[in-house]
Amino acid sequence: MPVIVQEWGTGEVLMLAYTDEEAWEKTLQTGEAHFYSRSRGTIWHKGGTSGHVQRIREIRLDCDQDAILFMVDLVGGAACHKGYRSCFFTRLRDGKPEVFAETVFDPKEVYSK
Amino acid sequence: MPVIVQEWGTGEVLMLAYTDEEAWEKTLQTGEAHFYSRSRGTIWHKGGTSGHVQRIREIRLDCDQDAILFMVDLVGGAACHKGYRSCFFTRLRDGKPEVFAETVFDPKEVYSK
Repeated sequence: MPVIVQEWGTGEVLMLAYTDEEAWEKTLQTGEAHFYSRSRGTIWHKGGTSGHVQRIREIRLDCDQDAILFMVDLVGGAACHKGYRSCFFTRLRDGKPEVFAETVFDPKEVYSK
Repeated sequence: MPVIVQEWGTGEVLMLAYTDEEAWEKTLQTGEAHFYSRSRGTIWHKGGTSGHVQRIREIRLDCDQDAILFMVDLVGGAACHKGYRSCFFTRLRDGKPEVFAETVFDPKEVYSK
């Protein structure tokens, strides 16, 4: 089941991830976003490595019960493993992708610790 | 490919839908959101029946190139076929789903025309 993550305070859309029953339960129990990694086939505590956890403020469900919206406080100011605040740091301009955001941390430094 | 639709002016997350190559091209050509319906297996012009089209203001791509964000102006003030502004009109309260939004149109009236 896809999960949209939106920052509570700013409304910025941060990322799209996926949940399963276990990730869902862990999110509810801990109050911090957990996801299911489709590529690794495992549960993943967002921010577990980087410290950039996502504290749940509100959870919303869509009309068809096939999408979820996590509204979160973003600890550390970044949701993207590439160092950006949001994973959506690229926009289309005249049909071409253009990076418009700036990194807030250096992934090499954070993930090599 | 999943598409998050967010209202340009308010930042409200409106819906999650899907695109394919044809829906993507039609969206770029017309400047109005088109989606791929996984259940019907067809392309779908959002608002084609209700008049509640979504005019594209900006398109963003995520870091893994596997999710898209449409930032739109919402003609008619509603994105949800159930008559709500956003498809995310239900929130969890103490673990239970609760509708917190109000409808802005009557689906029976709009879709029977």
